[in-house]
Amino acid sequence: MRFIDLIRKKRDSHELSADEIGWMIRQYSADAIPDYQMSAWLMAAFLRGLSPAELAALTSAMLHSGRVLDLSALAAPKVDKHSTGGVGDKTSLIIAPLAASAGVVVPMISGRGLGHTGGTLDKLESIPGFSVNLDIPRFTAQLASIGVALIGQTEDLAPADKRLYALRDVTGTVESQSLICASIMSKKLAEGIDALVLDVKFGSGAFMKRVEDARSLAHLMVETGERMNKRVAALLTDMDQPLGNCIGNALEVRECIDVLKTSKDAPADLIELSVALTAWMLLLGGISPSLAAAEDRVRSLIADGSGLRKFRDIITAQGGDPRVCDDPSRLPQARHTQTIPALTSGYVQHIDSEKIGVASLVLGGGREKKEDAVDPAVGLVLSKKVGDRVASGEALCTVHYNSDARLTEALALIESAYAIASPAPIARKLIHGIVQTSGGSKFNG
Amino acid sequence: MRFIDLIRKKRDSHELSADEIGWMIRQYSADAIPDYQMSAWLMAAFLRGLSPAELAALTSAMLHSGRVLDLSALAAPKVDKHSTGGVGDKTSLIIAPLAASAGVVVPMISGRGLGHTGGTLDKLESIPGFSVNLDIPRFTAQLASIGVALIGQTEDLAPADKRLYALRDVTGTVESQSLICASIMSKKLAEGIDALVLDVKFGSGAFMKRVEDARSLAHLMVETGERMNKRVAALLTDMDQPLGNCIGNALEVRECIDVLKTSKDAPADLIELSVALTAWMLLLGGISPSLAAAEDRVRSLIADGSGLRKFRDIITAQGGDPRVCDDPSRLPQARHTQTIPALTSGYVQHIDSEKIGVASLVLGGGREKKEDAVDPAVGLVLSKKVGDRVASGEALCTVHYNSDARLTEALALIESAYAIASPAPIARKLIHGIVQTSGGSKFNG
Repeated sequence: MRFIDLIRKKRDSHELSADEIGWMIRQYSADAIPDYQMSAWLMAAFLRGLSPAELAALTSAMLHSGRVLDLSALAAPKVDKHSTGGVGDKTSLIIAPLAASAGVVVPMISGRGLGHTGGTLDKLESIPGFSVNLDIPRFTAQLASIGVALIGQTEDLAPADKRLYALRDVTGTVESQSLICASIMSKKLAEGIDALVLDVKFGSGAFMKRVEDARSLAHLMVETGERMNKRVAALLTDMDQPLGNCIGNALEVRECIDVLKTSKDAPADLIELSVALTAWMLLLGGISPSLAAAEDRVRSLIADGSGLRKFRDIITAQGGDPRVCDDPSRLPQARHTQTIPALTSGYVQHIDSEKIGVASLVLGGGREKKEDAVDPAVGLVLSKKVGDRVASGEALCTVHYNSDARLTEALALIESAYAIASPAPIARKLIHGIVQTSGGSKFNG
Repeated sequence: MRFIDLIRKKRDSHELSADEIGWMIRQYSADAIPDYQMSAWLMAAFLRGLSPAELAALTSAMLHSGRVLDLSALAAPKVDKHSTGGVGDKTSLIIAPLAASAGVVVPMISGRGLGHTGGTLDKLESIPGFSVNLDIPRFTAQLASIGVALIGQTEDLAPADKRLYALRDVTGTVESQSLICASIMSKKLAEGIDALVLDVKFGSGAFMKRVEDARSLAHLMVETGERMNKRVAALLTDMDQPLGNCIGNALEVRECIDVLKTSKDAPADLIELSVALTAWMLLLGGISPSLAAAEDRVRSLIADGSGLRKFRDIITAQGGDPRVCDDPSRLPQARHTQTIPALTSGYVQHIDSEKIGVASLVLGGGREKKEDAVDPAVGLVLSKKVGDRVASGEALCTVHYNSDARLTEALALIESAYAIASPAPIARKLIHGIVQTSGGSKFNG
């Protein structure tokens, strides 16, 4: 087999066999295919697309480019959740303990924030002492003991994805639904899970701006999971405004604790989405007989404090200070706060999530380049969200900051992110639809 | 400017500006753009195409990536010819001396054979002592003294093309008409010419199998030349059977001498095409007032021996033995010959040029890889061409060979290349059409 023939084949819209794709990934992993050839193939795949069979073969080849965890020693269903990323998207910290407290094993391997979107690892690391760098033996031991662990990418799971992603990042081949699907699914399935719930976001703060794109990516991922004998469901969720009220690492941990504590400050949208995602995990894991039963179960696990206890267990197991659950002031706090008043009266029509995400980044809460350090304390707390009535001069949000210069830069972004007008906007659904199998999908909106 | 933005732009079918394309080629030439990014751009350009303005900008940038010859000290019009390559395509050896003997300066920089197609340099080097490795000062001095020189690629003309071609060759991005056009035109215009005649071949022995593809490439090259203020004409010519009767380096030199000598062995198709191409060179060079006048002029330059005298001058100037013109047996000769008889009677319907070219390659006359050495003596002499009546057992061609093993391999190819049947086939035109400007084209067929 010669790789140039596979480049030409894809270029000319022919379908590659599973053997050819497997060979390609093995050769690339062994440095027998140079980057300059792989990038040509990636661009051809970007522009010509991949068939469902090609996509499954690519996902499988990437998945098997490294170690695949064997969690068969654990009797409980292994289920994870993955989000395509958004602003204020902190559900992992709520979902993982809730699902585990219901009896699901949650082997969650997450990423860091980049650009305007945050990352689960950065949020967890704002908890004093918390370590996300568990090796695989410690990771599996923790899954056996408390049923859940939240760690960062390891070198030995899906290493081909890591190399391919780095190449895609510099060759304009990131934004391909097929390549995104293969990347996500290969990494997630390497966790040794039985089922996966996907939170596919769309809107101003998401990677995908349009629901159609989110829906087609969801279909790709669900179908690819199906071809690989995994139960997969995808929720299409609105990211046209930030999720919850807090944006910024420690601020978001605090908000998650509020949800698990049933605090009156816990935002309704964050509760709604966390409950729905966890319920789907229980349903796919076979823990609950129906979605309604699963949702009831999740709400009761929040109400009786089971979720918060499991969160405390996770923090303790991973070296963090569990006292943050009782006293969130133990989380890093910014030196200064400033409220941003509305310049006009009316209803909040829209909050540009990407601008809010960039504002948090500018404050120091995110990273522009992978090497950047993040400030865990800074961020924003929104006091008004879409649909809220606001009077001129009333606070829209509070900025938590450590540098005046950064504040100035963030203010302009925040002010331009809020669109205020009359009359009240038509409410948007948070959960727009659900994609379950290639056969039957359920759309609410 | 970031190159990834230019990759994305091309990927998304947007037009790059001349500044962007110029920057790209300068950065790539300076090793500031890695191959893995350039190959992604090339694949995007392959699949999305280039606009006429982009193509002219790319050609210009590649042309100016190195030295552009300044032949303004020579008063005569500078005109060259380029062929897209074929089997038995030896016209350069006839055209260059003929055009020069008419007063055109011919600064001809040619290539070597690769695969089933031959190369002008290999043919010239079969003349004992002939050197194609003149440096630029010697090249221009010879143009001043005898008006013509035939040399190989130099490192300092269009170096970006050399690098890009090597990358395209391994990334499945060779067969793009736009990229082919930029490659050919940048190299040719670096010769400092005023006008260019293109021989764009189609058929079984050509790079392009279909006349439509040849026509569109011809249009691209003519338009690109026009945008760069050069007079360009392209002849669309049939390569569905080999040109002339001889295939193989020394055999082809001998056939060219036959044409220039008005030998009765000189094949009609080779004469017709050589006269037409040279006439177009005289017309575009302003030497002749009309194509008919130019053709008359060329025929008289053959008849009065001017062309042969100029060919002798070239050989002498470039260190070769001019006595080959009087005594072609001084050219390398194979140790053995074998005639191939027809297995059936009828008319020759078709001769698969690619198979004949590969047969010559297999005999040792061509190269599979750039590093291979060629045997100047071996090859084929066809005694029957398309339309000829042939009786079973009559000779179709004679193989000139130096190795029995290679002969055996070649025989199967040659036998399967000839299609013999009744009735007589409909004659195909050799010159199918002419493309002159984007405004007006003239098609004969």
